[in-house]
Amino acid sequence: MSSSNSSSSSSTETLSIGIIGFGTFAQFLAKRMVNQGHTVSATSRSDYSHLSSQLGIKFFREMENFMDEDHDVILICTSILSLSEVLKSVPIHRLKKPTLFSEVLSVKEHPKEVLLQSLPEDFDVLCTHPMFGPVSGKNGWKDLPFVYDKVRIRNEDICSSFLRIFQNEGCRMVEMSCEEHDKLAARSQFLTHTVARVLSEMEIESTTMDTKGFQNLVQLKDTLVTDSFDLYSGLFVHNRFAKQELKNLEVALETVKQKLLTTVDGTL
Amino acid sequence: MSSSNSSSSSSTETLSIGIIGFGTFAQFLAKRMVNQGHTVSATSRSDYSHLSSQLGIKFFREMENFMDEDHDVILICTSILSLSEVLKSVPIHRLKKPTLFSEVLSVKEHPKEVLLQSLPEDFDVLCTHPMFGPVSGKNGWKDLPFVYDKVRIRNEDICSSFLRIFQNEGCRMVEMSCEEHDKLAARSQFLTHTVARVLSEMEIESTTMDTKGFQNLVQLKDTLVTDSFDLYSGLFVHNRFAKQELKNLEVALETVKQKLLTTVDGTL
Ligand SMILES: NC(=O)c1ccc[n+]([C@@H]2O[C@H](COP(=O)([O-])OP(=O)(O)OC[C@H]3O[C@@H](n4cnc5c(N)ncnc54)[C@H](OP(=O)(O)O)[C@@H]3O)[C@@H](O)[C@H]2O)c1
Ligand SMILES: NC(=O)c1ccc[n+]([C@@H]2O[C@H](COP(=O)([O-])OP(=O)(O)OC[C@H]3O[C@@H](n4cnc5c(N)ncnc54)[C@H](OP(=O)(O)O)[C@@H]3O)[C@@H](O)[C@H]2O)c1
Repeated sequence: MSSSNSSSSSSTETLSIGIIGFGTFAQFLAKRMVNQGHTVSATSRSDYSHLSSQLGIKFFREMENFMDEDHDVILICTSILSLSEVLKSVPIHRLKKPTLFSEVLSVKEHPKEVLLQSLPEDFDVLCTHPMFGPVSGKNGWKDLPFVYDKVRIRNEDICSSFLRIFQNEGCRMVEMSCEEHDKLAARSQFLTHTVARVLSEMEIESTTMDTKGFQNLVQLKDTLVTDSFDLYSGLFVHNRFAKQELKNLEVALETVKQKLLTTVDGTL
Repeated sequence: MSSSNSSSSSSTETLSIGIIGFGTFAQFLAKRMVNQGHTVSATSRSDYSHLSSQLGIKFFREMENFMDEDHDVILICTSILSLSEVLKSVPIHRLKKPTLFSEVLSVKEHPKEVLLQSLPEDFDVLCTHPMFGPVSGKNGWKDLPFVYDKVRIRNEDICSSFLRIFQNEGCRMVEMSCEEHDKLAARSQFLTHTVARVLSEMEIESTTMDTKGFQNLVQLKDTLVTDSFDLYSGLFVHNRFAKQELKNLEVALETVKQKLLTTVDGTL
């Protein structure tokens, strides 16, 4: 971590951040980090050398070389489903010092568990979930929730500097246990994605006579189906509360249907 | 119909409008009609004398006395489910001249059929559906869709003057057959209300970490469950396309579920 020469009043320390998994969401985050003066490098299954150089980011095709960089933070941005596999391929022993591992997966208990299992005792772990994406956060991150759990933090300075990236952008910082996050997210984010996927399956489209409510649903569908199916299914597979919420949704639909059928009977 | 003394450039003729069924939606419409200089009277199952006098509207507790008024238009604003019953209780023979009957029910084939069956051949019939309500239209009706079908119109003047009420407010006028309306509305409005009812059944509530998508769903639920269950079930019972869309929704949910379960199997 090095003192920043930037005149910005809010960001005082610049970090060297290494990103593993440089897909859509990682790129979206990395742009702001570079803007704030941090040094960002990245590695990924696919080759993002060209794009990275445009963004001012050092891209490593080889994980080994990536690990030789002197990172303050390693930020995991892979898909939920590939986390375990990706982490197995990370040669953690090559790191020259205990390093903060953070991640942004849309589920939280699973990466917490995997990181605690994979990392040496003296590595810090910060689990986070920015509750927005390239579409909902395209006009800035002001007031958008950033959920985090300081799972195992000894180096408070590095952790605070990393969190400050999101504070600086105006995020609403929400400290919450990984378990509590997953409970709430199953009832909110997973449910929202499910509704969007169902509407997409029905192929709903705008009509000449949309109500405002229907317009909102079409927009929700259009926004969320741009997220990968990997992301959506990850919300289900690795959030232990999701299965129950899917069941709740089915039961609620059945209840509404029965109420309608009772009305039909009543009007016969 | 009398020439208006109003200085408004857009509204030229004032109508005498008699409203049958003076619930939430009728009151919402009537306010604008009075504002535009029309003479509005009303009758309803419940007593709205007090409220009506505040709005500058003549309220009749007795249907007979209501019918003795010299209305240019009779506008039916009862619930979908009560239309047939209400219409049976209207002493149409008391009307001194052929009169335009219009209605605003959220389904269209059903009132069209009922009106054509109940009214003498020389009465005009205009079926309409303002695609907004007291919540979505609370800041004005500009650009909100107004669907109508000139089912049987001989007196074009009266009909045009009535439609102009909505044109004057800036509604987007959409002429469409009742059948086409019901087809589209089953896939849009009924579906939207169903999603809202299902979410309401699940008792979803805002959390500290809502995504924008979830916020939209909570808002949708809060807005639509203020509509009566009579309205919602009317969308189902009297729109012949609704049953299929409910089935489509169930099938789509099952498809999404199966896709998720396939992913679970794949990750085991
Ligand atoms: N999109 C959002 O709005 C959002 C918001 C908050 C959090 N998140 C989280 O951020 C992470 C990334 O999300 P995303 O939107 O970019 O899409 P995603 O489909 O969830 O993840 C794509 C990333 O995962 C990598 N990946 C996928 N399968 C892999 C495998 N078998 N081996 C190695 N790498 C693999 C991809 O690498 P390559 O690109 O190199 O192929 C890419 O970097 C996810 O954990 C997601 O839950 C996303
Ligand atoms: N709310 C909206 O956003 C909206 C938008 C477009 C169209 N519409 C349509 O407008 C109409 C009125 O809607 P609403 O929102 O006011 O609520 P609603 O529950 O659909 O209808 C309420 C009206 O129906 C009358 N009514 C109900 N049952 C009756 C019965 N058995 N006998 C006699 N009258 C009965 C009520 O009379 P009392 O009040 O005297 O009891 C009241 O005037 C409906 O056809 C609806 O589809 C509503």
